[in-house]
Amino acid sequence: MSITIAMDIGGTHMRAAVFHENENQPSDIKRIRTYVDGKTSVDRLINLIEDVTPQGETIQAIGIAVPGPMDPKKGVILAAPNLKEWTGIPLQATIETHFGVRTRLGNDANMAAVGEWRYGAGQGHHHVIYLTISTGVGGGVICHDQLLLGEQGIGAELGHVTILSDGPMCSCGQRGHIEAISSGTGIANYVAEQLQAGRASSLTGKPDAKAISHAAKQGDALAIEAFNRAGYYLGLGIANYLMIFNPSIVILGGGVSETGDLIMNPIRETVEKSVLSKHFLQNLTITRAALGDNAGLYGALALARDSVTFA
Amino acid sequence: MSITIAMDIGGTHMRAAVFHENENQPSDIKRIRTYVDGKTSVDRLINLIEDVTPQGETIQAIGIAVPGPMDPKKGVILAAPNLKEWTGIPLQATIETHFGVRTRLGNDANMAAVGEWRYGAGQGHHHVIYLTISTGVGGGVICHDQLLLGEQGIGAELGHVTILSDGPMCSCGQRGHIEAISSGTGIANYVAEQLQAGRASSLTGKPDAKAISHAAKQGDALAIEAFNRAGYYLGLGIANYLMIFNPSIVILGGGVSETGDLIMNPIRETVEKSVLSKHFLQNLTITRAALGDNAGLYGALALARDSVTFA
Repeated sequence: MSITIAMDIGGTHMRAAVFHENENQPSDIKRIRTYVDGKTSVDRLINLIEDVTPQGETIQAIGIAVPGPMDPKKGVILAAPNLKEWTGIPLQATIETHFGVRTRLGNDANMAAVGEWRYGAGQGHHHVIYLTISTGVGGGVICHDQLLLGEQGIGAELGHVTILSDGPMCSCGQRGHIEAISSGTGIANYVAEQLQAGRASSLTGKPDAKAISHAAKQGDALAIEAFNRAGYYLGLGIANYLMIFNPSIVILGGGVSETGDLIMNPIRETVEKSVLSKHFLQNLTITRAALGDNAGLYGALALARDSVTFA
Repeated sequence: MSITIAMDIGGTHMRAAVFHENENQPSDIKRIRTYVDGKTSVDRLINLIEDVTPQGETIQAIGIAVPGPMDPKKGVILAAPNLKEWTGIPLQATIETHFGVRTRLGNDANMAAVGEWRYGAGQGHHHVIYLTISTGVGGGVICHDQLLLGEQGIGAELGHVTILSDGPMCSCGQRGHIEAISSGTGIANYVAEQLQAGRASSLTGKPDAKAISHAAKQGDALAIEAFNRAGYYLGLGIANYLMIFNPSIVILGGGVSETGDLIMNPIRETVEKSVLSKHFLQNLTITRAALGDNAGLYGALALARDSVTFA
């Protein structure tokens, strides 16, 4: 029998999953640390694939979700802060040559969007916006059943758009991006600033987004305000994406979305108030992601199985 | 011989152009006022088509650019402030039935984008952003050789996205949209505010964008500042669209873009400073539209000739 290998490479771990033909549940997933003694290599990735492949099985195709902006036509990572060693190397070609099978690479946020679309919350939709809100804010867009990539394959940077000109500084060095305000980092920065300014709160020091969500659920006013603020700007951003893409579903993944109503309520409220006309809300679903940490793996599976076309 | 009819319907005039097979220059264009004695009708539109059609010629298809958000699948205008009488009526079906030929309708900003792509500044490109900056700001997107429409066909409202949360009021009732700041109306509102606040200027009263552009070219500091401000926010908006769509060309049409360097320089400067990485500027063209007022007509021609697919 033949199998498909789907991989997700992160700054901390790399995972490889085995999918048998016509099966949407992996028969095995193996995970190793990306770095050992401060080093990583493509050889370790190749070993992981060999390790996860059952004896006697033939690999049909390999799909890999990789961090950072990448060139999906060449299968080369253009920039990955967590994986500097792999920037610019011919990753796709190396693996393709080693195993002698079709290998395709995709940006991890795009692959998570594809995973949710093909196997998760977005099944059956033709126009999908996916946002992952965690340390940063990443995104992916399905536009009439095609993955939006753009001329060089580096589009859909949905977190790095200005929503509040001259707003807070973003990780990328620009100001007022959605990521700068509504990511876990943005939420933590806001609370730290407010605490430093002397605001009363059960929180102290420099709490992270998780601690802030706990405090909010205990009724801490500053913590609740921090999530309302993040949700408000995310809602404005999502309203923008409704105007731009007119999707039928918006899927929210990542740790911040997992706080549930705390972030979803202000998002929904703002979106409803901020659209150009009621048409944009008709038959629109705004929902949380269904596949959790496996969204990228599933996207890599769809990519390997060749059920993704690029726009 | 057979001909294609391309039309552009505006709040003031409607135009119909005749194109012979394999010809990209119209053999005739006729124009009538949309309203006579405060009335308009589909009959007048039908009469215009009959009037422009040369004797003995067979109409092969009709393409029509119409104002306002519309449903391109049904060929029905959803909302057009300048053409309230036509909102909700089966425009496409009526014309199709009358002439017995394939008739297709498209939103005027989308059609202008298609016109520039197929016959104007965007020829040969696969990923195109088109913005028209006049009284308002409209847009159209070509994404991997498809016109971006979205689930209901009302996407690509590129002027109605928030760029400055809590910024100036937009014509649509929301705040801080690109249109609210960078349209001719936005420029005029800003200058009127500044004059009222006592700013020194050669301008007085409530000058329009045209008067402000003349004053700017004469060296008036307030007028220059107004265009710099409009160009700055347009530049931020365009940088956002680069992050989202990774296009190879951005085409700017409309009266405000016709002021040339006055608006183009601050746009270019801001775009260059505001992208996530230099990759987004590689092989990127930012240019003025080539077809002027005829962009919509040419888009309607492409639509009629069936060389447009929808995304």
